[in-house]
Amino acid sequence: MDLLFIAPGAGLLALLFAAYLAGSVLKESPGNKKMQEISQAIFEGAMAFLNRQYKTLIPFTVAIFLILYFVDGYKLAVSFLVGAVCSAIAGYVGMSSTTKSNARTTEAARHSLNKALSVSFRAGAVMGMSVAGLGLLGVSMLYIIFGDPVVINSFAFGASAIAFFARIGGGIYTKAADVGADLVGKVEAGIPEDDPRNPAVIADNVGDNVGDTAGMGADLFESYAATTIAAMLIGNSIYGVNGVLFPLLIGAAGIAAAIISTFFVRTGEDGDPQAALNRGLWGTNIITAVIAYGLATQIFGAKGFGIFIAIVAGLAVNVLVGIITEYYTSNAHKPTQHIADASQTGPATNIITGVATGLRSTGIPMVVFAIATWLAYSQAGIYGIAMAAMGMLCTAGMVVAVDSFGPVADNAGGIAEMAELGPEIRKTTDKLDSVGNTTAAIAKGFAIGSAALTALALFTAFGEEVAKNPKLTGLLVDGKLVVNLTEPGVIIGIFLGATLPFIVCALTMEAVGKAAFEMIGEVRRQFREIPGIMEGTGRPDYARCVDISTKAAIREMIAPGLFAVGAPLLVGFALGAKALAGFLAGTTATGVLLAIFMSNAGGAWDNAKKYIEAGKYGGKVRRRTPPPLSAIR
Amino acid sequence: MDLLFIAPGAGLLALLFAAYLAGSVLKESPGNKKMQEISQAIFEGAMAFLNRQYKTLIPFTVAIFLILYFVDGYKLAVSFLVGAVCSAIAGYVGMSSTTKSNARTTEAARHSLNKALSVSFRAGAVMGMSVAGLGLLGVSMLYIIFGDPVVINSFAFGASAIAFFARIGGGIYTKAADVGADLVGKVEAGIPEDDPRNPAVIADNVGDNVGDTAGMGADLFESYAATTIAAMLIGNSIYGVNGVLFPLLIGAAGIAAAIISTFFVRTGEDGDPQAALNRGLWGTNIITAVIAYGLATQIFGAKGFGIFIAIVAGLAVNVLVGIITEYYTSNAHKPTQHIADASQTGPATNIITGVATGLRSTGIPMVVFAIATWLAYSQAGIYGIAMAAMGMLCTAGMVVAVDSFGPVADNAGGIAEMAELGPEIRKTTDKLDSVGNTTAAIAKGFAIGSAALTALALFTAFGEEVAKNPKLTGLLVDGKLVVNLTEPGVIIGIFLGATLPFIVCALTMEAVGKAAFEMIGEVRRQFREIPGIMEGTGRPDYARCVDISTKAAIREMIAPGLFAVGAPLLVGFALGAKALAGFLAGTTATGVLLAIFMSNAGGAWDNAKKYIEAGKYGGKVRRRTPPPLSAIR
Repeated sequence: MDLLFIAPGAGLLALLFAAYLAGSVLKESPGNKKMQEISQAIFEGAMAFLNRQYKTLIPFTVAIFLILYFVDGYKLAVSFLVGAVCSAIAGYVGMSSTTKSNARTTEAARHSLNKALSVSFRAGAVMGMSVAGLGLLGVSMLYIIFGDPVVINSFAFGASAIAFFARIGGGIYTKAADVGADLVGKVEAGIPEDDPRNPAVIADNVGDNVGDTAGMGADLFESYAATTIAAMLIGNSIYGVNGVLFPLLIGAAGIAAAIISTFFVRTGEDGDPQAALNRGLWGTNIITAVIAYGLATQIFGAKGFGIFIAIVAGLAVNVLVGIITEYYTSNAHKPTQHIADASQTGPATNIITGVATGLRSTGIPMVVFAIATWLAYSQAGIYGIAMAAMGMLCTAGMVVAVDSFGPVADNAGGIAEMAELGPEIRKTTDKLDSVGNTTAAIAKGFAIGSAALTALALFTAFGEEVAKNPKLTGLLVDGKLVVNLTEPGVIIGIFLGATLPFIVCALTMEAVGKAAFEMIGEVRRQFREIPGIMEGTGRPDYARCVDISTKAAIREMIAPGLFAVGAPLLVGFALGAKALAGFLAGTTATGVLLAIFMSNAGGAWDNAKKYIEAGKYGGKVRRRTPPPLSAIR
Repeated sequence: MDLLFIAPGAGLLALLFAAYLAGSVLKESPGNKKMQEISQAIFEGAMAFLNRQYKTLIPFTVAIFLILYFVDGYKLAVSFLVGAVCSAIAGYVGMSSTTKSNARTTEAARHSLNKALSVSFRAGAVMGMSVAGLGLLGVSMLYIIFGDPVVINSFAFGASAIAFFARIGGGIYTKAADVGADLVGKVEAGIPEDDPRNPAVIADNVGDNVGDTAGMGADLFESYAATTIAAMLIGNSIYGVNGVLFPLLIGAAGIAAAIISTFFVRTGEDGDPQAALNRGLWGTNIITAVIAYGLATQIFGAKGFGIFIAIVAGLAVNVLVGIITEYYTSNAHKPTQHIADASQTGPATNIITGVATGLRSTGIPMVVFAIATWLAYSQAGIYGIAMAAMGMLCTAGMVVAVDSFGPVADNAGGIAEMAELGPEIRKTTDKLDSVGNTTAAIAKGFAIGSAALTALALFTAFGEEVAKNPKLTGLLVDGKLVVNLTEPGVIIGIFLGATLPFIVCALTMEAVGKAAFEMIGEVRRQFREIPGIMEGTGRPDYARCVDISTKAAIREMIAPGLFAVGAPLLVGFALGAKALAGFLAGTTATGVLLAIFMSNAGGAWDNAKKYIEAGKYGGKVRRRTPPPLSAIR
């Protein structure tokens, strides 16, 4: 079966391309000594966090490995471990790349906008290619070795176990550092953002990488793996080997499209970097669609066109969710302007309008998911749903590249500020940074949308697998899994499942609160106790702040993580498989809704702030003179 | 069938008791001329709103009546109309009672705390008895006339149509007036709450009645009717006539228990009015349980004990939801204190902590609903679920009484302030008012919890009815409705249904924003243009503010109302009955979750504010001198 080796080949190609990109970025000048020092501090902080995080997860991972080993045999256990390790490797590679490229981007900004874009985008693409490459390589190699898509299911489980903690830990880290740096530095002490006098400034820059690169990368790695495997499982039961092969080939198509499209990302000195990145995204979507058409009609004959339409439905969700996210969160559009407008009557009306905007922004995306799912299903049955998810996720290489570009550009600006380079360099990095905010929002929309479609595909695969499991035949009606919504146990499951995201959100918000509180205390202490810190003669203890964010993030990620992992187990064992199915449906629905709500409300608030800072409604009220240090508690 | 006449008898008894209470309250002294004038203005404002609201709903109601008449025959149409009209009557009666009793409560506060409690509680009990009495009388009489529980189903539909608009319209009215009065009066002009110089003060007082009495009353009237009918439907298909009769008898038991328990609501001069009201609530729960035990074992024999346990599960939800609501929203407990604590670092941390508290507070109530449902189901099957809901809702007479007492006490305080009565009277009314805030929170928890159980009962009844409908036999598997969660259409339905409450919340929040904005403009205009208004020599134009709230509420209730009514119809016709079932399940789950989240976050914020105002963290920062009027935009 020659075609089967195309997928690991494409995965390997992606990894080689990542290595090539990394090498080319490392060849760029790392800037002057000061810039190198700052970059090194960020690199070390990021690595310290990753080391500590993965170390914390080792016992958890080993425990699951052993359970799988003794309960389900070595194949599932090995697949699980490979998934977890691949996720960790992608995290290390990506974080090394972005934190080694920040000062190089600053240095490149001295020459041209295009050069700065090129360095930062290549750095992000290292992460993108690693995620897609390791994902496809891992899944396809395990399939070649074990020959059974059911066995490799736990590859996705391994990726998922790491992703959850990476996302939560990274999120807590970045928000604690961000809030601590801003609230004491900007608001209380009146010094600008990224000011080297701020003790939390390095932690803040580490946080950008930890949250947007490592967290988002692990998240999409998991969705990528889960979707591919779900499509293989469903394909296997409907079309046999061809049904398994096809998703792998679509994955390979996505990688090829992403590699080609990286060459579209370039701009002139007065050009728009956003347009350059958009070309990369559009290029990936279009090339994928073209290849998918050829593959689908070749492999499935007359049925191929329906499957092709399903893939296009997924690609369309990509584009539409991006546009909708942009509409609700960009200050070029009404919703965000309306929040800025409402801020004139104070924080209360600001909050009400922002919450209402976030709630309202859930409507169109959910309808888009519904239509895409319905279209895919009507064209190609349940395989179509999986292929819509696959169509969306096979472009993950480019999406992660564009997303990981963000923290590099952000860091580059911070380094320009800290190394006291001129305003013209800062102007170039600012231009990139503001584009990074938009791409981060697009990537968030992508992550949510693809998670929704992945969950739908997994749900369908769950039904298929239960139907085949000899231990669960009691649940079947005419050989099909029937989870009847009119049974009270199922409804109870939906109720409890729908509650889970509310609780996990509460736990993570409280965790950020606690971590930020510690950070605020430390920054205030340093301002108070280190002599000459405000005059720039005393050196802040950056490492201490990095350490606080790291420890707090690791400590606080445990409770929500265990809760999210434990609740479905508890429901499954206490109330049975049908209630668990209801639970998963409920969790997916409110999980997607809360994610869209919070992500868009947050984006809109952030940009409404920027809209006002840019001069609307009288602009930012600047404090002329910083308050005396004694005023800082 | 003699027993059948017990239910309309109990309904009539409740109405007679309401008339007796109303007469006894009207005999109390209405206070001095000034007090009477203010009370009259509030009464007229409230009636003007109700008139306009119901007039707006007439075309809508007539349209549905005609559709039902021509599609389903006169019985369903008549039942619908009777439901809508009964809801409207309850609204008129209750609002008349509370707005005619506010000044009488102020006057009673001159004599004793117990007398003030007695007047305000009796006024609230008029609404409570009207809701329960009209509900039981309407349902039981229609059953006696038509002899078929399926036909009277649309009684609940009629009640529901009115309730939705009453709740939304009332909510918009009260919040617009509240925000307008506070933001301009308290914050900008620096005058106290309920100051007669504030042009929005009458509108604010009308709003208390419109929101808490009319809105909540219509809401619970609908839940009461829907639950009773769902229990009758399910009972009919399982136990025949006995199964229909029993819920009606439990309704009668609840009314008897509530009437008896009104006599427990009394206190001494230094007594705790909260304890008095709690005795009323506990008395109702206990007496209902005792009667239910007798009835269940009498009617169902050996199976009666399981049904009794189901009813007790519902009563237990009553008590537990009250305790949980109190825990999360009272400033005697940690969550609210924690919000006050977080407010020290500004609005941002206040908001994050409040949102996290609200999100977290969903957990235990949802588990309580799940356990109660499971217990009821395991003891008495699907009839048990309906009877748990019935157990909860049969106490609605007392809950509405205790809830409607709130606006009377609140108004009484406002009248004392406006009529410039001494501080000792204000102290008495304040004591009652603060109890009113707690009972309002308890009633909200009750409304949410009972809506959740009602929805579950209705959902089960829906399954039963579809199974019997000859047009829908295509949906059946072995004579049972099967809505299979693993079918994509059902999952799409759940996704879309889960989104609906998010959108309706956004629409209503935006509606309040718009209405409040108009109110703010008008209050500012009056402060600016009416000479001598701040010195107390110029008279504010109260009627204009009342009119703005009324018009805005009526105008803004249409869009969310049509959306909520239209979306399920659209889904049902476009995607079919199974997707609609998924839609309803999704809507119920997130509807309950968002309701708990918002209600508890709001309550906790409000009480955190009061905690600080009472002196914690330095107390309220008082503006020494009001700013010059020219400073008010």
